Amino acid sequence: MLSKNTIKRITRLGQKKYRISEGLFVAEGVKVIQELLDSCLEVQELYTTDETLFNTHTFISISPKDLKSISFLTTPQKALATFKIPTSVHSMDEGLTVALDNVRDPGNLGTIIRLCDWFGVEELICSEGTVDCYNPKVIQATMGSIARVNIRYINLEGFLKETSRASYGTFMNEDNVYETALPNEAVLVLGNEANGIRSEIKALLKNQISIPRFGAIKATESLNVATATSIFLSEFRR
Amino acid sequence: MLSKNTIKRITRLGQKKYRISEGLFVAEGVKVIQELLDSCLEVQELYTTDETLFNTHTFISISPKDLKSISFLTTPQKALATFKIPTSVHSMDEGLTVALDNVRDPGNLGTIIRLCDWFGVEELICSEGTVDCYNPKVIQATMGSIARVNIRYINLEGFLKETSRASYGTFMNEDNVYETALPNEAVLVLGNEANGIRSEIKALLKNQISIPRFGAIKATESLNVATATSIFLSEFRR
Repeated sequence: MLSKNTIKRITRLGQKKYRISEGLFVAEGVKVIQELLDSCLEVQELYTTDETLFNTHTFISISPKDLKSISFLTTPQKALATFKIPTSVHSMDEGLTVALDNVRDPGNLGTIIRLCDWFGVEELICSEGTVDCYNPKVIQATMGSIARVNIRYINLEGFLKETSRASYGTFMNEDNVYETALPNEAVLVLGNEANGIRSEIKALLKNQISIPRFGAIKATESLNVATATSIFLSEFRR
Repeated sequence: MLSKNTIKRITRLGQKKYRISEGLFVAEGVKVIQELLDSCLEVQELYTTDETLFNTHTFISISPKDLKSISFLTTPQKALATFKIPTSVHSMDEGLTVALDNVRDPGNLGTIIRLCDWFGVEELICSEGTVDCYNPKVIQATMGSIARVNIRYINLEGFLKETSRASYGTFMNEDNVYETALPNEAVLVLGNEANGIRSEIKALLKNQISIPRFGAIKATESLNVATATSIFLSEFRR
């Protein structure tokens, strides 16, 4: 049975301040954990209710009731592990980088990390107001992709001032992305779910692009930031 | 104060059988409700905790506690309404149609409905095993787009056998969508989150297309069905 101390130590990793002080984050589910074990990330503790699942790693066998006491999921998924938060690597200022300006929804950030992985975007820059990528809900939504994308939380204004690459901001009624020539070396900026890109960031962006709407005049007024990211990345890579 | 009967009548609309027997579905939040009120859908009851919100419609003023007792959201959003489920219109067998084979996640279906609205896809065909589009979580994710897309639940095999349009199935390792000429008249088929398109459906599809992966060999093994839909629709419309 898990001690009260262990339960407290793990569940408080739901809070960013404890993730920072411990240098750890939580991953759940066999598929996500297996992908992270296969990556360069370092596992700290691995708990499972099924001893047949992880025969190549040291694990602690626990009861379903114990798993429920440390899980962040409504329906716990047979295994939970803690991994060390990696130190972020400095940018090489090359290739295609995605930059997020205060994206708040963990599901959106997780989906965007998975899209970066799919489209071979090695670096993701997050403004300091963007949801923490080691939030358990983000980890869940990345499906293991978090191990393959280098994510840095920095001052977005400073980053955009310093990059030598062309920057592309995504807005509602700007240049049609389908008619814009897109380079291999670029920074693609997406904004907050409700407010878009802040005006002080917009002022730093040399190019402003949009996905045209094909529906009726009364069609939906915007696309979700994660689906918009998928279309922009597809356009940069196709 | 709401009567026990009213609370029961509304909360059981979370179940498909009661939505069918009552012919009603639930929408929540000012933005979603306002979009549906502005559409051709017929409102049945409108409850709100803020009398200043809906001055052009008849509403029932309730307390936040009452709203909590009928809401399907963790954080209720000031208003809840019931609308009549519209009768679905028969297909014209023209233009671009999206067809879903057993998509189960309400958030994915809601996002796909919103994408159909954005890309001017007027008809969405759902296999009988696809999650019900009047599920409260789907309605929430559509952000009002449900009123602008004609959604039909039918036998997908029968539909594909009868359509005169070219059908395009989406798979993992088939023809590169970026190198495929896509017509204006087509049926685009997407499959279940875990299992993709069923083999009996696949046998009926004349074209099989894929989004190529640009990341490393060890990159994420698949895209979420909603993000894949956004990229395929973008390719059909660009």
